[in-house]
Amino acid sequence: MEMYKRTHTCGELRKTHVNETTQLSGWVNRRRDHGGLIFIDLRDRYGITQLVFDPKVNTDAHTLANTLRSEWVITIKGSVIPRAEGMANPKMATGEIEVEVDSLTVLSKAKTPPFSVAEDITEVSEDLRLRYRYLDIRRGVLQKNLQLRHKAMLITRQYLDEHLFTEVTTPILAKSTPEGARDYLVPSRVHNGTFYALPQSPQIFKQLLMISGMDRYFQIAQCFRDEDLRADRQPEFTQMDIEMSFGTPDELMSIIEGLLQKLFTVCKGASIQTPIRRMTHAECVEKYGTDRPDLRFDMQFVRIDQIAAKSDFSVLKDQIELGGVVKAILVKGGARFSRKDIDRYTDFVRQFALQGLGWMKYQEGALSSSIVKFFSEDLQKELIVSMHAEEGDLILIAAAKESVVNQSLDHLRRHIAREHKLYDEDALEFVWVTDFPLFEWDEDERRVYSTHHPFTAPHPDDLHLLESEPLKVRSVSYDIVLNGYELGGGSQRIHDTELQKTIFSHLNLSEEDIEEKFGFFADALKFGTPPHLGIALGFDRTMMLLIGTENIRDVIAFPKTQKASDVMMQCPSAVAEEQLEELHIGILEERVKIDS
Amino acid sequence: MEMYKRTHTCGELRKTHVNETTQLSGWVNRRRDHGGLIFIDLRDRYGITQLVFDPKVNTDAHTLANTLRSEWVITIKGSVIPRAEGMANPKMATGEIEVEVDSLTVLSKAKTPPFSVAEDITEVSEDLRLRYRYLDIRRGVLQKNLQLRHKAMLITRQYLDEHLFTEVTTPILAKSTPEGARDYLVPSRVHNGTFYALPQSPQIFKQLLMISGMDRYFQIAQCFRDEDLRADRQPEFTQMDIEMSFGTPDELMSIIEGLLQKLFTVCKGASIQTPIRRMTHAECVEKYGTDRPDLRFDMQFVRIDQIAAKSDFSVLKDQIELGGVVKAILVKGGARFSRKDIDRYTDFVRQFALQGLGWMKYQEGALSSSIVKFFSEDLQKELIVSMHAEEGDLILIAAAKESVVNQSLDHLRRHIAREHKLYDEDALEFVWVTDFPLFEWDEDERRVYSTHHPFTAPHPDDLHLLESEPLKVRSVSYDIVLNGYELGGGSQRIHDTELQKTIFSHLNLSEEDIEEKFGFFADALKFGTPPHLGIALGFDRTMMLLIGTENIRDVIAFPKTQKASDVMMQCPSAVAEEQLEELHIGILEERVKIDS
Repeated sequence: MEMYKRTHTCGELRKTHVNETTQLSGWVNRRRDHGGLIFIDLRDRYGITQLVFDPKVNTDAHTLANTLRSEWVITIKGSVIPRAEGMANPKMATGEIEVEVDSLTVLSKAKTPPFSVAEDITEVSEDLRLRYRYLDIRRGVLQKNLQLRHKAMLITRQYLDEHLFTEVTTPILAKSTPEGARDYLVPSRVHNGTFYALPQSPQIFKQLLMISGMDRYFQIAQCFRDEDLRADRQPEFTQMDIEMSFGTPDELMSIIEGLLQKLFTVCKGASIQTPIRRMTHAECVEKYGTDRPDLRFDMQFVRIDQIAAKSDFSVLKDQIELGGVVKAILVKGGARFSRKDIDRYTDFVRQFALQGLGWMKYQEGALSSSIVKFFSEDLQKELIVSMHAEEGDLILIAAAKESVVNQSLDHLRRHIAREHKLYDEDALEFVWVTDFPLFEWDEDERRVYSTHHPFTAPHPDDLHLLESEPLKVRSVSYDIVLNGYELGGGSQRIHDTELQKTIFSHLNLSEEDIEEKFGFFADALKFGTPPHLGIALGFDRTMMLLIGTENIRDVIAFPKTQKASDVMMQCPSAVAEEQLEELHIGILEERVKIDS
Repeated sequence: MEMYKRTHTCGELRKTHVNETTQLSGWVNRRRDHGGLIFIDLRDRYGITQLVFDPKVNTDAHTLANTLRSEWVITIKGSVIPRAEGMANPKMATGEIEVEVDSLTVLSKAKTPPFSVAEDITEVSEDLRLRYRYLDIRRGVLQKNLQLRHKAMLITRQYLDEHLFTEVTTPILAKSTPEGARDYLVPSRVHNGTFYALPQSPQIFKQLLMISGMDRYFQIAQCFRDEDLRADRQPEFTQMDIEMSFGTPDELMSIIEGLLQKLFTVCKGASIQTPIRRMTHAECVEKYGTDRPDLRFDMQFVRIDQIAAKSDFSVLKDQIELGGVVKAILVKGGARFSRKDIDRYTDFVRQFALQGLGWMKYQEGALSSSIVKFFSEDLQKELIVSMHAEEGDLILIAAAKESVVNQSLDHLRRHIAREHKLYDEDALEFVWVTDFPLFEWDEDERRVYSTHHPFTAPHPDDLHLLESEPLKVRSVSYDIVLNGYELGGGSQRIHDTELQKTIFSHLNLSEEDIEEKFGFFADALKFGTPPHLGIALGFDRTMMLLIGTENIRDVIAFPKTQKASDVMMQCPSAVAEEQLEELHIGILEERVKIDS
C-alpha cells in the first residue's frame, strides 16, 4: 500500500521546497508535449502541480508519460525544481516550481469522460452533469461548495456549543403528522399494515426535549417533504433546528444574529450589522406587500387612498368604494423610462390580477401623464410630498383589492429593481419580520390554519381576541429574511395545556384527531412544561446565499431532480416482489397497467 | 416574555453571589415544610438550588408556595443568602447558599408523574420509562448521556476537520442494494411502483466522493437496517463514517487512534496507549477463537494437538483423526474450583455443541484429574510447559471440529473471566484485528459472501489465490475492537474496474445484477478512481463504552424498542387510506384479516 502514499499534496509545493524529493498523486488534468519534454498538470483537491518528464532524466517514465490521458490517476516521485526564467505562473499557488519526474506509476486508467473535468463546461446540460455527479464534483466548484458547507456546519456547531446548546439526534423513523406537507412513509415489516413517516421537521421532538429539561437543544437535521418540487426545493433538506427554555425572543434573536455574523464573516468574508433591524408582519406587508421583503433597495409602498379619494379619477375612486386600496411606489430616476417600458410593467402586473398601472413622471418641476389632469394642483403637491418625489422620478400607482395591490407591487418593485440594477448585489440586508398572524384563513376549505404550526403561542396582548376575532390574533413569532429570501423562522411555543387545547379546537382538530395524532404530546405538556421557544433555519438556503448561487443543487453532494429522482443511481427503483411481501404491501396500479 | 427570563441557572449560585438578587426558573424537585418555612429544591439542567419561602419576607409567595407540587415549573425572584451555620450541603455545588424568595410565579402546573423524577426509580419498568421518555430524560442521567454524546460528536468533527476531512451529508432517500441486511423502503409518489431505500451505510456515496476527488470525507451518519433486533441494536443507528484517498492503512489507523485517544480522554478521562496493538485475523481466531477478543484478561488458547496425539486418551485422539483440533486454556488459580464448578462449565459449553471438557488441576507440583492417567509423565511435563501452568492453576481442554472448539472456548473464557472477576472492568484494551478473509462460505446457500462488503480489496500477496482457493484470500482490512466489542471496521477498497468485476463474479452476481444494482457504480470506477480506503465506527456502541452502559437506549434520545416501535409516539402507526393511494400501494394482508 506504500505506493499509494504521497509526501505532499498538489497544492503544497513552493519555492522553499526546491531540491526536495516529493511523491505526488492525483489526476492528469492536462498534458502538453513541448520540445521533447512532456508537461502534465497533476490535480488533486488541494491544487495543481506541473510535472515535467524529461527523457534524459528517466526514459521509462517519459515513455510511459506518453500514454497518459486526461483523468488517469497516477503517482510520481521526483525533485522539486524552480521554473525556468519567465515561466513562473503567478495565477497558480504552485506556479513558481515544477516537479522533474523520476518515476511514474499509473494507479488507475480512465475512460474518456462525458464532459471535460479540466475545462469550462457551461454548454453541458445539468442532467448529464447530475448523471455523472462524481465527475462534476471533481471539476472543483462543487468540491469547494461542499467544503464550505462543512465549514459552515462546524462553525454552527461550535458556536451553539459555546452557547450551551446540546445537539441531539432525533429519529428519522418517526410518526405521520396531520398538519403540513405530505409525508414520506416507510412500511413496517414487524407491525403489519402500519407505517413510519420521515420527519418534516423535528418540531415535536425538540419540544419534548424542552419538556425533558434539556434547556437548550439544536440539531443540523435532515427533514423530508413529499411535495411537488419548486426549483429551490429538495425532497430531503437540511435544517438548523434550535430550541431553548426560559428564554425570550430577544435572547434567541441575539443568539441567531451572532451565529449569522460568524457564518457570514468566516464563510463569505462579509460583516453583518447587528442588531438586525425588525419589522412587524403588519408593517412589512403594508410597506412591501410581502413578509419577506428585499431591503437592498427602497421603493416602499405609500398608501394614497386619501389623495385618490379626493381626485376626479374614477378608476381609483371606484376601487376605494369597493373596499380596495390605492398604493404607489416611487422609482428614483424612472422618469427616463419610455412609454414602452411602462407598458411592459403594466403587462407584468396583469399576471398578478392587477388590471392596470397608473403612472406620473416628475419632470421640470411638474407631474405629467395622461391621468395628472384628474388631480388638482393641491392634490398633485400632496402626492409629491407623500411620495418624496424629486426631479426625474416616476410614480407608479396600483388600485385594487389589498392583496392584489400588495402582490402586484411587490413583484413589480423587485422586477424593476432587478431590471435597472437598483441595488448592490453583494449587499446583505437582513430583517426580522415579527408578530405574524396566528392563523390564516383558507377560503377553499373555509377554515383557519396555523400560519407557522399549531404549537405557536398567541401574542399575550391578543388573547382576548381568540374567540371573537381569531384572524386578528398575532403570534409571538419571528422570521429572519435576507435579501428577500426567508432563511428561517420560529416562535414562542405554547406551554399551557389548556391554551394548546383551545388552539387545536380552532384548527378544527377533533378530540379524536388530537388524541390520535398528538395524544402523547398533549399529554406530555401536562407534566410540567417550561416556557420555550425556538427557530429553524433552512441550511441549504443559507448555503445558497453564502455561496451566491440560485441553484440548490450547487450546495448538496447528491441532489435529486425536480422529479425527486437521483439520475446517477437511477433511484427510486423497482424492488423485488419478496421485499414488498415482507412489508405486507402491494403495488396498487400494477394490475391496471397490465390490463390496459 | 420577560417573565420567563432567568438571571442565573440552578447550578450557578455560590457564596460569592451572596446578597445579589436573582431570578431562577425550573422544576420543583422536592418540597419540605419546616418550622413555618417552606424549602423548595429547584432543578434545571445545570443543578439544584434551595429556595426558602419565609412568610415574614413575602406572605403571598409563602402562601402560593404551599400549593406547589413536584414537577411544577416556576420562576422566582429573591436574594442569595448564606445557609445557616452547619446547614451547608457539601454534596451540592450550590450547597453553601440558598435563595430567600421574594416573588413566585407558577409558569406551568404538572400532573403527578407516573414515576418519580427526583427519586431513584430502579423498580420502574423500562417500558413505562420509554412511554414517558421525556420524564425519564428529565431525571438527569439521560440528560448527561445526551450531553456527552453531543460532546463526542463535536470532538469527532473538530478532530477530523483538523485532519482535513470534509463532512459531507449523503442522501437518506437512496437506492435499495442487494448485499447486506434488509432495507427500509419508501414508496415513491411521483414514480409509480418504485421505491427509495434508507441507506444501511453511506458506503457507495463515500466511495463516489473519493472518485469525485474529495480526498478525505467523513460523516456522522444515520443508517438503517430492518433486522430483528438484538438487545444492543436499533433500526436506525449512527455511524462515524470515514474515507480517504491516496493513504495507507497505517495512516488511517493512526488517525483513528488519535480520535479514540481524544474521545476517551475528554469524555471518560481515560488515556489510551498508542499505537494500539495489532493482531491478524488468523492469529486472533487461533488464540481467542473470535475476531473480537476481550484482551482485558489473558487465557489464550494453546493448541495441544501433538500432545494429545501422543496420549492414550482416545476421546482426544479420535477428534484429531476426524480432522478436529485440541485446544486448552489455563485458568490462573483455577485449581480451587470445585468439581461442581467444572461440571457447570461442561454444561455451559454444551450449548456451543462441545460434547465435553477435559480438565486437570496443577496442585502440589503435579497434575491431577481422572484423565491424567492417559498422559505419560513426559507428556504431562510437556503440557505444563506449553500451558505455562503454575501451582494452583487449572487446565481446560476442548477437542472437536475447530469452529466448535473456538466458539466454545471463546464463550467459556469470557464466562469464567466474568464469573471470577479476572479483569479490571475499567481497563480499556484496544486491538486492531487485520487481514480478514476476503470471503466467507455460506454452507446453506453453498456460495461465498464478502466478509466485509464487495468493494473490499484483496490482499496484494493473495491475488494468485483468487481463482484457485478464494477462501484463502485475505483482504486489506482492519477492525477495531475494545474489550471484546467491535467498535468498527474498514478496508482498502478496490480501485480497479477489472478486479471489481472479478470479485462481483465470485459473489455470484450476474452481469445483470451488477448492471441493475451497481451499474452506475461499476461505471463510475472506470473514470479514474484513486486508491482509497476507509472505516466506519459504530457511534452508539462507542458511546455505550464511553458511558459504561450495556443498554443502547441509554445513549439515544428517542430509541425504539426491540420490536422497532416508539412506545411514546405509538409509532409505526396506521395512516389514512388516501395517503397510501397517493403512493400507489395497498396493504396486502388487510383483506385476509377481515376474512378471518
